[in-house]
Amino acid sequence: MTDVVIAGIGQVPVGEYWDVSLRSMAVSAIQRALKDAGGLAPQAIYIGNMLASTVSHQANLGALLADQAGLRGLEGTTVEAAGASGGAAIRLGYLAVLSGLVDTALVVGVEKYTDQLGPAVESALAQSEDSDYEAVHGMTPAAQAALLMRRYMHEYGVAHDCFAGFSLVAHANAANNPNAMFRKPISREAYARAEDLVEPVNLFDMAPYADGAAALLLARSDRVPAGLDHDVVRITGSSIVTDTLALHDRPDPLALNAAGFSVERACSQAGILPEDVDLFELYDAFSIYAALSLETAGFARRGQGWRMAEEGQIGLNGRMPVSTLGGLKGRGNPVGAAGVYQAVEAALQLRGEAGKNQVDGARRALVQSLGGPASTAAAHVLEKMN
Amino acid sequence: MTDVVIAGIGQVPVGEYWDVSLRSMAVSAIQRALKDAGGLAPQAIYIGNMLASTVSHQANLGALLADQAGLRGLEGTTVEAAGASGGAAIRLGYLAVLSGLVDTALVVGVEKYTDQLGPAVESALAQSEDSDYEAVHGMTPAAQAALLMRRYMHEYGVAHDCFAGFSLVAHANAANNPNAMFRKPISREAYARAEDLVEPVNLFDMAPYADGAAALLLARSDRVPAGLDHDVVRITGSSIVTDTLALHDRPDPLALNAAGFSVERACSQAGILPEDVDLFELYDAFSIYAALSLETAGFARRGQGWRMAEEGQIGLNGRMPVSTLGGLKGRGNPVGAAGVYQAVEAALQLRGEAGKNQVDGARRALVQSLGGPASTAAAHVLEKMN
Repeated sequence: MTDVVIAGIGQVPVGEYWDVSLRSMAVSAIQRALKDAGGLAPQAIYIGNMLASTVSHQANLGALLADQAGLRGLEGTTVEAAGASGGAAIRLGYLAVLSGLVDTALVVGVEKYTDQLGPAVESALAQSEDSDYEAVHGMTPAAQAALLMRRYMHEYGVAHDCFAGFSLVAHANAANNPNAMFRKPISREAYARAEDLVEPVNLFDMAPYADGAAALLLARSDRVPAGLDHDVVRITGSSIVTDTLALHDRPDPLALNAAGFSVERACSQAGILPEDVDLFELYDAFSIYAALSLETAGFARRGQGWRMAEEGQIGLNGRMPVSTLGGLKGRGNPVGAAGVYQAVEAALQLRGEAGKNQVDGARRALVQSLGGPASTAAAHVLEKMN
Repeated sequence: MTDVVIAGIGQVPVGEYWDVSLRSMAVSAIQRALKDAGGLAPQAIYIGNMLASTVSHQANLGALLADQAGLRGLEGTTVEAAGASGGAAIRLGYLAVLSGLVDTALVVGVEKYTDQLGPAVESALAQSEDSDYEAVHGMTPAAQAALLMRRYMHEYGVAHDCFAGFSLVAHANAANNPNAMFRKPISREAYARAEDLVEPVNLFDMAPYADGAAALLLARSDRVPAGLDHDVVRITGSSIVTDTLALHDRPDPLALNAAGFSVERACSQAGILPEDVDLFELYDAFSIYAALSLETAGFARRGQGWRMAEEGQIGLNGRMPVSTLGGLKGRGNPVGAAGVYQAVEAALQLRGEAGKNQVDGARRALVQSLGGPASTAAAHVLEKMN
């Protein structure tokens, strides 16, 4: 089978860009990825995005971004799966290169969140849920997370403070990431006294929605130019799995089946077990999802995911480092772009370019993004080439 | 290379479904396609859709439709390229099957247009254009078509009546299609006296936006069950090509380069010339696009596309039949679903199931859908299996 590699990566710092357009952010990330890939030319561009239609009134991003990036004529289209849009775009880019018809594919995650404010954006984000049965009643993604967190606390007899570790690790890691939105570590005390957003979800349990753009240039391995100044990273496992869209349709809402199966499939394709990876870029849009993701992936027993955070197992030197450059929580959550950021960060780790946050000897990474309450889960295994 | 075939097709009649939800329409089309494919099970579901986020406040359609169709757990994602969304979804489904990782993929086109009315929907449709430089000034897709039509009439000295043939053929063909929105032929006199919508675009120059859902089950040819009661159709050529998003960025606005290149690439992959196809399901959202599509595909010289309609060359017994079951004009234009309807109709022709509209001896079809002013063009060549 053709080897598909990440020949180049690019990102812009995540943040609030009130004065920068979606197209400008995306073009910056694309230019960086193309430069990083030593000028290798893309044949297609797949855009992971969720909000452009509702927030920026713009569809047809494939044509827009190919055009604006000076790549007019390229195959281009948008891929959407709510918060898993970036991961889904990687998946389709990967399949395209594997098909043999596309040798090089740009995968771009872009989200312009700050074109609007308030209820309009909340409503747009709630489209990741079942609009007819959930969002219509006013349920937001934060409210869904609160339901899950409350249920978790009830089922397993866990206090709210037990989730602190996820936020502490994420913010500590973000402090050293120049592309992160938040660069300051937080204290356990700060977590404990943070105001509730949707009780029991507090300010530090929820990743901040933000603007951002990141890009990967995927390529057949035999198309990678000689003399690159960095390693290339292989994609050895890839999957998308869905679950019920609505949370209330699940007999066991804490199971996050799609998240679990997506890890299982991606690892099975890569010929590894989840524990064989050296780091896990998980989808910590809310700390409850971080805990559940660790459990459903098999790194902790059910009801025990929070212990990994409390016991230092998810830190950079822990058994299974997560959110190594800040995760959604510390780096920021550019919704449909988040999955591409996660892959860029995993690639930095595997290339040995993660600076102060380098996971020693990292050779394999698992990357997962979730859309809705893990209604769509995309997972990829990335490996160092040699 | 793996042969990718259309093992099953399904569609619901195009129309206005004020009392039927997006999910119900889509599930009907999916069930019909699965039944048509003799129960072959899909492994993935790719949804072509443009308007769900803006009109129905629903994203994450992959999870929604897999769940609602009783296919929970399947790989699922949405593919968007404005009016070319359906064609783009076919392209990505095709690449997925070619990749070797997905054996069977449902491609669903679905559009629920009637959840809102008036300016909100006009504005949603205008997202196919450059929002920052075109739509913001009030330009709608109909206004873009009017600019192109006016320019065409000016450049080539053509009167408005010269476009009548496209609408006459489309409506004549739709009369025999039980899934078409309009079942009545129109007369040349009706065309001549029709009111202007955006001068010179009149009522019969513009396809009606509508609701609809259509589905294809794509499969590796070796996965097709024995004993199907119909032929299977191969996909032998596939492409997506982009152009500038904004019309004003093109030195030659009547060239529709993306449309031309997409035909060239799809035919080249299939090892044929455009003239080797027996019918052309072109994107007649406006009659000017029908004329230009014939020209850019090479069936007519520039400025002469309208003559093919006037001279009977695009009728069912003509040199190059188009819109054989009514096209967007007569069957209706369910925007992001249109590309899948076009492929379903081409498959009916190649299977010999087009009833009164059967193109005699049809063995090869070209299908093209356009997003924005042909800013994205998707083209596929379909061929009868044996």
